[in-house]
Amino acid sequence: MYRIGIDLGGTNIAVGIVNDEHKIVVKKTTPTLAKRPPEEIVADMARVCLEACAELNVNIKDIANIGIASPGIANPVNGCVEYANNLPFLRFPIVQLLADGLGIDRSVIKIANDANAAAWGEAVAGAAKGSANSIMVTLGTGVGGGIIINNKILVGFNSAAGEIGHIVIEQDGAPCGCGRRGCWEAYSSATALIRMTKEAVEECKKTGRYTSMLKAERISGRTACDAMRAGDEVGTEVYNKYVKYLATGITNLVNIFQPEVISLGGGVSNEGQSLIDAITPLVRAEQYGGDVVALTQLRIATLGNDAGIIGAAALE
Amino acid sequence: MYRIGIDLGGTNIAVGIVNDEHKIVVKKTTPTLAKRPPEEIVADMARVCLEACAELNVNIKDIANIGIASPGIANPVNGCVEYANNLPFLRFPIVQLLADGLGIDRSVIKIANDANAAAWGEAVAGAAKGSANSIMVTLGTGVGGGIIINNKILVGFNSAAGEIGHIVIEQDGAPCGCGRRGCWEAYSSATALIRMTKEAVEECKKTGRYTSMLKAERISGRTACDAMRAGDEVGTEVYNKYVKYLATGITNLVNIFQPEVISLGGGVSNEGQSLIDAITPLVRAEQYGGDVVALTQLRIATLGNDAGIIGAAALE
Repeated sequence: MYRIGIDLGGTNIAVGIVNDEHKIVVKKTTPTLAKRPPEEIVADMARVCLEACAELNVNIKDIANIGIASPGIANPVNGCVEYANNLPFLRFPIVQLLADGLGIDRSVIKIANDANAAAWGEAVAGAAKGSANSIMVTLGTGVGGGIIINNKILVGFNSAAGEIGHIVIEQDGAPCGCGRRGCWEAYSSATALIRMTKEAVEECKKTGRYTSMLKAERISGRTACDAMRAGDEVGTEVYNKYVKYLATGITNLVNIFQPEVISLGGGVSNEGQSLIDAITPLVRAEQYGGDVVALTQLRIATLGNDAGIIGAAALE
Repeated sequence: MYRIGIDLGGTNIAVGIVNDEHKIVVKKTTPTLAKRPPEEIVADMARVCLEACAELNVNIKDIANIGIASPGIANPVNGCVEYANNLPFLRFPIVQLLADGLGIDRSVIKIANDANAAAWGEAVAGAAKGSANSIMVTLGTGVGGGIIINNKILVGFNSAAGEIGHIVIEQDGAPCGCGRRGCWEAYSSATALIRMTKEAVEECKKTGRYTSMLKAERISGRTACDAMRAGDEVGTEVYNKYVKYLATGITNLVNIFQPEVISLGGGVSNEGQSLIDAITPLVRAEQYGGDVVALTQLRIATLGNDAGIIGAAALE
């Protein structure tokens, strides 16, 4: 039995046909061309689904489930994208239109926010497989995530829940793209790590303090991590500062949710197990109630960019 | 059909028999005497249940449901209190012992953390009645709360979830009883409001700035609120500072959970609708995604000290 997951991004539409073992057996992409009318985007989603089916020689009517991972506020009840920041969707009935485009019943098609779909992917087939309660945190341009409670995605009463990047962890702190100040995203995204690195390098330029990062042609999210590993003192300070903020946000999630697993995805998670090893003792020292009960496990997400497709395909 | 709710506190055991309309028809209390062996506490819980039944002339075997609201980590699966700060419980099988004491089947008895039971009470019969997704925040000695998602209490994989007071909102901020620094509890509890008031009064003493609060014999959680209402400038500043931190934490909860209702209970909530009116515009201005979707309603909790009994009786 096959399922389809559609990861609808601001740049590309990625369609995967997924088998019973949650493996992608066919994957096809097409540009989103985000500025065109949304109906055209849906028409291309349908076209790529049919092309993928043709390649596998299956009929679209034999696909058990089609899931859409969409940016913004995806309403699983009415099948609409209520709003998306980077796509021209406003209360847009994407599920019905895709069903019409494919000539199938709309009950086959499910929808979730893309970060939630990725978290669901990690829950069914990735780092949190086997756990009914898990959270995936994506450390990329922003801090996103999805929360799984008793094997269901937390969406709230209005489908907009799960904005874990927009928990203020520093009152009146660094400005966040959402309009607040001091959000976790403003301290734990790759963007924030780059900002902290640049600030430290500028400070070194001013004070004459040495850091190997002065030689970096371009400062990325890896610059401070690489410098730290090479023994650079300033790089180590930046990394430790970043890790402390990251641990603060992770501990907040533990105290609120007590999930069995928190997995980290996104660019910064490429640091791998060393990042987990750095934050774990900080979380253990600060989490509420100590170790009377079983402890949340911290892990690196395992599905990478396929998490959205795999999670969307597995939506229920 | 009657149900029983038992609110097990550090000072008193309160037992209520609750009718189908979630009203308490008989209420009896006895001192907890928290330092004695836990088996004796359970024996008194059973005794008071039987006394309450006798008063109403019903047989304990005809009670449809008995719920325990316990401090600490209450495990609804194994019926144990895993740990409690102010009672001598450690992996203590309270449900089985109470069932034995009452001579009834243990399946009749349910258990929840006391803050969670109170939130469930507000959800079934109080400020959040009719909403499947709600949060109750208790602003008392600490900041506690309970989270209801799809008509179920959020307990996490280890029964310890829902510690919303222990979300850091100010990195390296004021020390919290839990060991962290900068927890929401350290800024939005009645204790924190008293601390902020005392700090402001001390500052006035030092600088010679006038405040009517200098005349206060004893500074309580109401001192700054009363001074603010009387037009005192320093009182207004303290109140506004408190309100800003409170709104930060509430907005965090909205962004994470998007509940239909957040209700405020505990001592500070006696400020009533004026407190709601003060925080609402701050939350509206900062919550993620603006007003594209339906908005969380902020309300004062309505069940007062009975919330725990009513919620415990209604546990499922």
